[in-house]
Amino acid sequence: LKLGKLIYLFDSNEISLDGPTTLAFSTEDVKKRYESYGWQVLHIDDGNTDFESIDKAITDAKAEKTKPSIIIVKTSIGYGSPKSDSSACHGSPLGVEETKATKEFFKFDPNLHFHIPDESQNHFANIISSKTDIVNWDNKFEQYQKTHPDNASEWNRIWSRKVPGTLKNSLPEYNAGESTGTRHACKKILNVLAGEMPEIIGGAADVAMSTLAQLDGLGTFDGTTGSGRNIYFGVREHAMGAIANGMAYHGGLLPFVSTYFTFTDYMRPSIRLAAMCKLPVFYITTHDSIAVGEDGPTHQPIEHLMSYRTIPGLTLFRPADATETLEAWKWALDNLTGPIIFALTRQKLPILDRKILASADGVHKGAYILSDPKNHKPDAIIIATGSEVHVALEAQTLLKTKNIHTRVVSMPSWEIFQMQDQSYRDTVLPPKIKNRVSIEAGITMGWEKWIGDNGKSIGINTYGKSAPGDVMMEKYGITAEAVVGIVEEF
Amino acid sequence: LKLGKLIYLFDSNEISLDGPTTLAFSTEDVKKRYESYGWQVLHIDDGNTDFESIDKAITDAKAEKTKPSIIIVKTSIGYGSPKSDSSACHGSPLGVEETKATKEFFKFDPNLHFHIPDESQNHFANIISSKTDIVNWDNKFEQYQKTHPDNASEWNRIWSRKVPGTLKNSLPEYNAGESTGTRHACKKILNVLAGEMPEIIGGAADVAMSTLAQLDGLGTFDGTTGSGRNIYFGVREHAMGAIANGMAYHGGLLPFVSTYFTFTDYMRPSIRLAAMCKLPVFYITTHDSIAVGEDGPTHQPIEHLMSYRTIPGLTLFRPADATETLEAWKWALDNLTGPIIFALTRQKLPILDRKILASADGVHKGAYILSDPKNHKPDAIIIATGSEVHVALEAQTLLKTKNIHTRVVSMPSWEIFQMQDQSYRDTVLPPKIKNRVSIEAGITMGWEKWIGDNGKSIGINTYGKSAPGDVMMEKYGITAEAVVGIVEEF
Repeated sequence: LKLGKLIYLFDSNEISLDGPTTLAFSTEDVKKRYESYGWQVLHIDDGNTDFESIDKAITDAKAEKTKPSIIIVKTSIGYGSPKSDSSACHGSPLGVEETKATKEFFKFDPNLHFHIPDESQNHFANIISSKTDIVNWDNKFEQYQKTHPDNASEWNRIWSRKVPGTLKNSLPEYNAGESTGTRHACKKILNVLAGEMPEIIGGAADVAMSTLAQLDGLGTFDGTTGSGRNIYFGVREHAMGAIANGMAYHGGLLPFVSTYFTFTDYMRPSIRLAAMCKLPVFYITTHDSIAVGEDGPTHQPIEHLMSYRTIPGLTLFRPADATETLEAWKWALDNLTGPIIFALTRQKLPILDRKILASADGVHKGAYILSDPKNHKPDAIIIATGSEVHVALEAQTLLKTKNIHTRVVSMPSWEIFQMQDQSYRDTVLPPKIKNRVSIEAGITMGWEKWIGDNGKSIGINTYGKSAPGDVMMEKYGITAEAVVGIVEEF
Repeated sequence: LKLGKLIYLFDSNEISLDGPTTLAFSTEDVKKRYESYGWQVLHIDDGNTDFESIDKAITDAKAEKTKPSIIIVKTSIGYGSPKSDSSACHGSPLGVEETKATKEFFKFDPNLHFHIPDESQNHFANIISSKTDIVNWDNKFEQYQKTHPDNASEWNRIWSRKVPGTLKNSLPEYNAGESTGTRHACKKILNVLAGEMPEIIGGAADVAMSTLAQLDGLGTFDGTTGSGRNIYFGVREHAMGAIANGMAYHGGLLPFVSTYFTFTDYMRPSIRLAAMCKLPVFYITTHDSIAVGEDGPTHQPIEHLMSYRTIPGLTLFRPADATETLEAWKWALDNLTGPIIFALTRQKLPILDRKILASADGVHKGAYILSDPKNHKPDAIIIATGSEVHVALEAQTLLKTKNIHTRVVSMPSWEIFQMQDQSYRDTVLPPKIKNRVSIEAGITMGWEKWIGDNGKSIGINTYGKSAPGDVMMEKYGITAEAVVGIVEEF
């Protein structure tokens, strides 16, 4: 991508926690390796004391605009201390005596602690006061605001992570009678958003054709010009997650990344960091259940829904249809304070008829009463997410013919439902109604939270197999009949 | 490691799912990259039809005994089909017409399906009948069994994944009054096991000094001689997990790998595969809670205990002291049918006094009554894992002074407890006792399973901070006082 601004300082001190790096790093030629990647490779022989070489290398790295640079800096770990060049100073603090000896080595007064010499203080103060660029930039921008008020206000909008006020008029509407995968719905929504919000940029780990996380007509990112908004990450989920974190940290950009739901495991460490650092990153993940079908157990998520619910600060959405997908995106844009993961279907799902069923506004509360019996108190509650909401509705209809009256709750986001006050949660799941069944094509562990002591869960607690998606759902018991059986037992 | 047997065929067809590989792979020189790693690099210009070159490259790769080989094979994806050289044949099956055209290209009869030509059948049959090595090997081994009965029986033991009968006599015993981190206990046990079981081999991702997953005096693995049983994986958790899977698949080896509990995220995909494929791999993970201390939130597990409980087929142990650690290992050795993850403490923990408390045999049932009130029915149950078991016992003592009588349940493994029959589970957690509190230094989501509708959980649902371990536990409310408060409310 010709990312000339990327400069990597490799502190080559030849020591790791467990000892010399030769323990685990015996044959690699780092210079040759980075040359093979197409990077500029620079070298500093003495990173301990040769400040001129360090300065020159960084200057050379900045001068190379068409490729990233790695600067291999030969250093001594713990330079100047008695533990220098030893793994003993990798993970443990120096002791009192060794700190003293180190200060003496650098000709500092060993009796002064947390002391900044005047010389250093002045040096850095001079650098700061010489940096007039920032003041100049502010003045220029003030000028620009006067001559280009629209562009300036767009700039301010983007950097303050606000959504354009006009956006809501452009969003699609969905009508009952049609069928679409939630991945297809997501693609349509994402493209509308990207059309209105130039800060949206992203791509997939070589599955854009499948996850549909593509911006039509917006080109492939070109590092030289900065144009193009689709990034082809290749089969590199971990790097993709890390890059998205970098873009979110930088600001001025709203990154999305995409892969199959199962393969998000490869970027779990980056997802955790995004959550910890409150970075707005969108994870568009698809093929969200065993309904993936023939790709088999390696590609079929089982534990993933629950495993992402365990990460503090991450919000997971598993929408039941196109309309819920849209509402999930609206919630996400109103809450650009942390990462969001969308778990979307490969298979088509009917668009729910909101004239008969409740409005999808309930998505903004995490869970809501989708359908209640008419003129009856519910005998039982069926709680479902994503594609299983349709199974729940089918079960509700079957049960009605047996004169059993059930409520169907759609629960696209546990995290958001958990944030609601107790009174709303009690409205959706009244403590008195203890006949509850959950249905979700994933592990059942965790559902006790919502179904309670008397509840039953329908789910999958083993790995999948290779078969067509509908056969899988049938064989693994993710069926309306299974729900009916449990409710009848109640 | 001089792994000359490792041969990697790189199918360089220049097509990925999303299109030409140039989308994501523009500058890399693969030959140079693998040379920089110290591999032998071989090349086949025409992997479609030049069988002699393929044969020669594989022969050359096998001849190189001191380094791994990569064979870069230039091919056309979907060679012979009308979709050749296009991403259209990466993920989708050929249609009827295209299958016909492909068969015609190869001069096969397009009307025959699932047909193996006699020529091919005979060719492969001849190869099989010419392979007399296996028969010879069996004969030789039969002979060897007669002349070296002890070695032969050891060989059979190892390959059938059995534990030596004498092992139990060598295992350490722990006495109350001492204190030791469960990581320290694990090291001692592991070294005893490795002394008796030559199949045990492994290492850590550059944290052996911290996780203590080291075999004393057993040397560093040397790929040339095959001697040495400590492997230094470097900071490469993903590769470490994948390598362990390979060793477990090979058989004859029982691999252990090790890192900080938080960093297991980097090898989660390999852990999932080990679980799916029922591979006996031991994950020795340490620094299992915010008690890690000063390393801060990136190093402090929060969601990890629960997130590993979601993976089907993986068994997690979080032992409360050295004795539970030993019993966990015993269970693991009796159940070499899948991966085991040990979550161990950095900090010291007192060895529980089994003269007063229940025997640690209960570990084999996943959870057990560690301490019950004398001459009283329990007013409440405190359930804890790992280091928090000690907090639970402290709370029990404090509550007793207030004339409140509680049971303490130690629950080192959810998975194993779940496998017990309902009657045992009801003995430990009687349905009538609804006053239950769980305490675990991790997220509380999921604990509803064991504490029920009336229960309360003490845990941590946010990220940690940098402070000494005991300060962290106090500030995050993982205290006996917190347990006492909840039980008093009951």
